[in-house]
Amino acid sequence: MNHVLRALSRPDQSHASGGEAHSRYNRQWWYVQRPVDKLGAEHFEFRTAKVAPLQDNEILIRHHYLSLMPGNRAWMQRDTYVPMLTTGQVMPGRAIGEVLESKDPDYKPGDVVETMLGWQEYVVAHASVLTRRDKSVPMNHLLGVLGSSALTAYFGLFDVGQPRAGETLVISAAAGGVGSIVAQLGKIAGCRVIGIAGGEEKCAWLRDAIGLDGVVDYKAGPIEEALKQLCPDGPDLFFDNTGGPILEAMLPVMKIGGRIVCCGNTAQYDSPMPEHGPKGIPITLIARDLRMRGVLLMNYLNRRGEAEAALWRWTAEGRLKPIYYIVDGLENAPTAMIGLMAGANRGVSLVRI
Amino acid sequence: MNHVLRALSRPDQSHASGGEAHSRYNRQWWYVQRPVDKLGAEHFEFRTAKVAPLQDNEILIRHHYLSLMPGNRAWMQRDTYVPMLTTGQVMPGRAIGEVLESKDPDYKPGDVVETMLGWQEYVVAHASVLTRRDKSVPMNHLLGVLGSSALTAYFGLFDVGQPRAGETLVISAAAGGVGSIVAQLGKIAGCRVIGIAGGEEKCAWLRDAIGLDGVVDYKAGPIEEALKQLCPDGPDLFFDNTGGPILEAMLPVMKIGGRIVCCGNTAQYDSPMPEHGPKGIPITLIARDLRMRGVLLMNYLNRRGEAEAALWRWTAEGRLKPIYYIVDGLENAPTAMIGLMAGANRGVSLVRI
Repeated sequence: MNHVLRALSRPDQSHASGGEAHSRYNRQWWYVQRPVDKLGAEHFEFRTAKVAPLQDNEILIRHHYLSLMPGNRAWMQRDTYVPMLTTGQVMPGRAIGEVLESKDPDYKPGDVVETMLGWQEYVVAHASVLTRRDKSVPMNHLLGVLGSSALTAYFGLFDVGQPRAGETLVISAAAGGVGSIVAQLGKIAGCRVIGIAGGEEKCAWLRDAIGLDGVVDYKAGPIEEALKQLCPDGPDLFFDNTGGPILEAMLPVMKIGGRIVCCGNTAQYDSPMPEHGPKGIPITLIARDLRMRGVLLMNYLNRRGEAEAALWRWTAEGRLKPIYYIVDGLENAPTAMIGLMAGANRGVSLVRI
Repeated sequence: MNHVLRALSRPDQSHASGGEAHSRYNRQWWYVQRPVDKLGAEHFEFRTAKVAPLQDNEILIRHHYLSLMPGNRAWMQRDTYVPMLTTGQVMPGRAIGEVLESKDPDYKPGDVVETMLGWQEYVVAHASVLTRRDKSVPMNHLLGVLGSSALTAYFGLFDVGQPRAGETLVISAAAGGVGSIVAQLGKIAGCRVIGIAGGEEKCAWLRDAIGLDGVVDYKAGPIEEALKQLCPDGPDLFFDNTGGPILEAMLPVMKIGGRIVCCGNTAQYDSPMPEHGPKGIPITLIARDLRMRGVLLMNYLNRRGEAEAALWRWTAEGRLKPIYYIVDGLENAPTAMIGLMAGANRGVSLVRI
């Protein structure tokens, strides 16, 4: 925990806010060591650095919220939809910030932007790495019900999963950032929704607060038995955020002709590089006529507007509840990330900077 | 090989053909021992038995051709699309035969039927377990270009794979019963077709006799390297008959958005029960936006007529070459099956009874 303790001794706050860019001190978490098993504080290092004066076309942004996702851990381990992260850089992550100064004529102070450079208080960047966001929306919602977890849930469920009213939808990691949104979208689509989560408390919350039709506590026993009780014919659709043992257990209980949306592999992110995939691939795909497809969010971002409009409307109507697990203080980002991998959160995990 | 030798001492042939049903001797291969590793002669036992006189509604059939498929081996090992086979029964398998006698008014001597009761010379059966076939077609074609391997190839490629002209199609076990037909259908669909097979001789045959655009000998080295030479952007479509190491190697070389047709798992049929699936499931499905789907032939059989008409037309036009690997004599069925699992065949494997 040395790194976290060091983080708490911030540079003088009178330097860290207000004033000229060249007198600002930035607080940053660097990614310094590759994890070989569970993520720990030793994989990050807290550093302070002067914010450099702006050059032509550069923009100074102050981050307000950082989003934490299991995918951040996956980046450290292997090539995913981005090449494997190299050590010796500020830890990347999705964040929302406000423009403080700008030498780009298209951006002005007060503009709200999204960056992937998130484990730091300030960032100096060119417009090419920014996404302009709607400044009338509270910043937590920009990473929450309008954030990448929600977009992944939306395109993963509707485009890949193609749910039909009356179908049974099972979701793994149903209390997580993506899962808790898929669960609610599944209800909006008219599905009977069953959530898989770890622990009685999360399961009770999914049932009582989120209104799921059934819950399975994977820590309480084999999920196959519990699912056979809840849906004897098997689910039509399985939205999988975990991979690993839960995906393996689901294959033989799927309905003939069922569909599996592969969205995440959290079961294998926070451990040594997995050597094998689930038993039953490909034979159970053949024997049960199953379909599997991955969700690669970047392929759908040209339809971001459509998704945001729908998500925002459902939020306004009270049909999609924003559920955020907010940790205060950039200094706590590694602890929050370690907690996320251990299943501490409910809903979208955010760090308020 | 004792069982095979015993098989060669047939009962007196004067009893085995012609005459009354009650004086016929049947020759049968029984499935008597579950294989735990490679299939061997010891898993079968040759027996002779008197053919019982026909009861009401029963039909006596003489089998002429037995089809051997890797799936037959899979049945011995685990539940597939049929429950795992129990020992102590005549080995099942798809066969074509001729009706000799009938106490069912809908069947008469000379009718041609397909049964799943194939590892025997005669069978007494009810109409419910028979499929009537076209007696104007030579019997080998009924199990070949109009048989289940061809139907699996047809529905697997066209319905599951949905190839488009100009796409690159890669096929594993391309010289096998299903693979050699998929390869030819892929050319008919206008694809660039690359076959994966074991050994230089099979690869040369696929290139020269079947006209494939590229071949990869998986015994010659890592297939990833060879495929990168042949299709640097990766295949649009992969028709997989093997599962196991070849499927695992293919995942990261697929084109982004590519499709995988899971048709067989021959890599894992003739070995102890596989404990794990391919590395990269689900993470590579996500990172490369891949789709996988199994081919379950029974789901398509209501469209058998459409498929047979197309396959027969292409055969008549010379665009689909019938390729049969024929072993003579029921007594050689186990040896032929063992050879099939070792990759001895090219094309559809048949036993002439």
